[in-house]
Amino acid sequence: MTTSAQGLRAVALGGGHGLHTTLTALRRVTPDVTAVVTVADDGGSSGRLRRELGLLPPGDLRQALAALAGAEDGGTFWAEVFQHRFGGNGALAGHAVGNLLLAGLFEVLGDPVAALDEARRLIGASGRVLPMSAEPLEIEAEVTGLENGEVSRIRGQVAVASTPGQVRRITLRNPGRPDEPPVACQEAVDAVLSADVVLLGPGSWFTSVLPHLLVPELHDALVRTTATKVVVLNLVPQPGETAGFSPERHLDVLFEHAPRLRVDAVIADRGSVPTPARLHRAAAGLGGRAHLADVAAVGVPERHDPDALARCVREALGLAGSGIG
Amino acid sequence: MTTSAQGLRAVALGGGHGLHTTLTALRRVTPDVTAVVTVADDGGSSGRLRRELGLLPPGDLRQALAALAGAEDGGTFWAEVFQHRFGGNGALAGHAVGNLLLAGLFEVLGDPVAALDEARRLIGASGRVLPMSAEPLEIEAEVTGLENGEVSRIRGQVAVASTPGQVRRITLRNPGRPDEPPVACQEAVDAVLSADVVLLGPGSWFTSVLPHLLVPELHDALVRTTATKVVVLNLVPQPGETAGFSPERHLDVLFEHAPRLRVDAVIADRGSVPTPARLHRAAAGLGGRAHLADVAAVGVPERHDPDALARCVREALGLAGSGIG
Repeated sequence: MTTSAQGLRAVALGGGHGLHTTLTALRRVTPDVTAVVTVADDGGSSGRLRRELGLLPPGDLRQALAALAGAEDGGTFWAEVFQHRFGGNGALAGHAVGNLLLAGLFEVLGDPVAALDEARRLIGASGRVLPMSAEPLEIEAEVTGLENGEVSRIRGQVAVASTPGQVRRITLRNPGRPDEPPVACQEAVDAVLSADVVLLGPGSWFTSVLPHLLVPELHDALVRTTATKVVVLNLVPQPGETAGFSPERHLDVLFEHAPRLRVDAVIADRGSVPTPARLHRAAAGLGGRAHLADVAAVGVPERHDPDALARCVREALGLAGSGIG
Repeated sequence: MTTSAQGLRAVALGGGHGLHTTLTALRRVTPDVTAVVTVADDGGSSGRLRRELGLLPPGDLRQALAALAGAEDGGTFWAEVFQHRFGGNGALAGHAVGNLLLAGLFEVLGDPVAALDEARRLIGASGRVLPMSAEPLEIEAEVTGLENGEVSRIRGQVAVASTPGQVRRITLRNPGRPDEPPVACQEAVDAVLSADVVLLGPGSWFTSVLPHLLVPELHDALVRTTATKVVVLNLVPQPGETAGFSPERHLDVLFEHAPRLRVDAVIADRGSVPTPARLHRAAAGLGGRAHLADVAAVGVPERHDPDALARCVREALGLAGSGIG
């Protein structure tokens, strides 16, 4: 266990708003933050760019860059430009400027990691943003409850996230090479292996948190790394893919998708855990300890308070005494 | 007349490839170059952005930024990204990344001059790029030869540039306020007034060179400035709007649109002037002197050689002895 935040290397895995939350909190713990971002999005501006240009969906990557540039704290001018969306109802409507710029960088450099490093320099992000894979991937889910008793297969992040059925299991594939497992981004694997702390969650459990575990080399790195592994649970039951899931059920699903994975800490909001004893048991079953704290933002119960979450991460790392800025 | 290039303030007025040529040449004369760019384009990526978002057409502005970043000499990484165009046949096909980024900057900052200054810093342009007006403008042309003996009115830069008729006269208006004269960008007016040398042309004569003279405050600034005023004529007769125009006819048209304007020098390629005596006379009629030189690029007779053009500008400024890099 690390005893000082000095030089602490943190990696956060996820996508969307959940990852934004973790990154915003981690920046308060250490300047050395790497985001490893899902590349299975097929909705909105990202989905349109992915389909039109055959590139990585840039939206989650852009959000991670903005989080690391401190966009919610004022941030940099370029972070604001990245986050700006065109309005109206024309060909550009809904596209974020940063998505278009990332698409341009992907095409010019031909390497998403190099492109993200350029974007990071431009917007002054304090850490690094990496895709979990350099190829756009597709989520496929086994879902029950749609046709009586039968298992349906649903493809695509938007379809899975919004299914009225119960998601049982997801798999991940590169639609261009459907018979081979997805290939991890090597820099992401290296970041996990050399990290001091790795965060999984919060976020849409099946579509933003679990996909990372289904990229074999990334999964292996998560199993092998000596980093402290922290799972951050969602605050309120999410509508759609995990409707009605208890906190423990989230951990069960994690284990079902990655049986060899052990975690050191599970952070949950006190108000979101109806039966603490069950969560403590479930966390112990994964090899770790549950940390219950008040991490929901005051007045916004569906959002984490970054300072409170940062405090809880420090506590989980045994850094509680080193003071929180 | 200036005798040293040290601190020389140069302004180039124009649009499109012609302005790119002048800026590339002027960078070889002085680092203090300001481009004043037409904002009447309604074609291609620029026209689509203008119609969809109601913004200044960014393409000519982007080209000027790229020229000042030395894009043709290798330039900067960001200049390359600015110039990159999306392919395919989707919603983004044909859009230059820099056009989209400029559109985003226009919307975020609400001020095209501030937006262009940010873009300039990003791509490392050595001078400043200004729009001739902060509002998108529209060219209207009086054209003969379309219906027997009658004068037709044609609207829009693309339509005017490609008319099979003879353009007689153009006017410029803000389609949103058609009864008022177009308003100049104040920074462009100031740049002309404080310049040591101002270049007009080369380029599509009616649609890239003359529009600046039809913005009243910019016209007045061109008349009043103490700068050495240099007209650079086109190399070969342009198809379309000035098909069949002699070099002298270009100067006549200039005079017809701006009777009070005097020029100090007219630069023409020796090979593009069939009757030098006539050009000398026409230049004298505008108060200046014709400079005939070999300014066409070797092997590319429709393009100026930037070094040769720079040499000729220095000569016109009496700087010939100070050595050209």
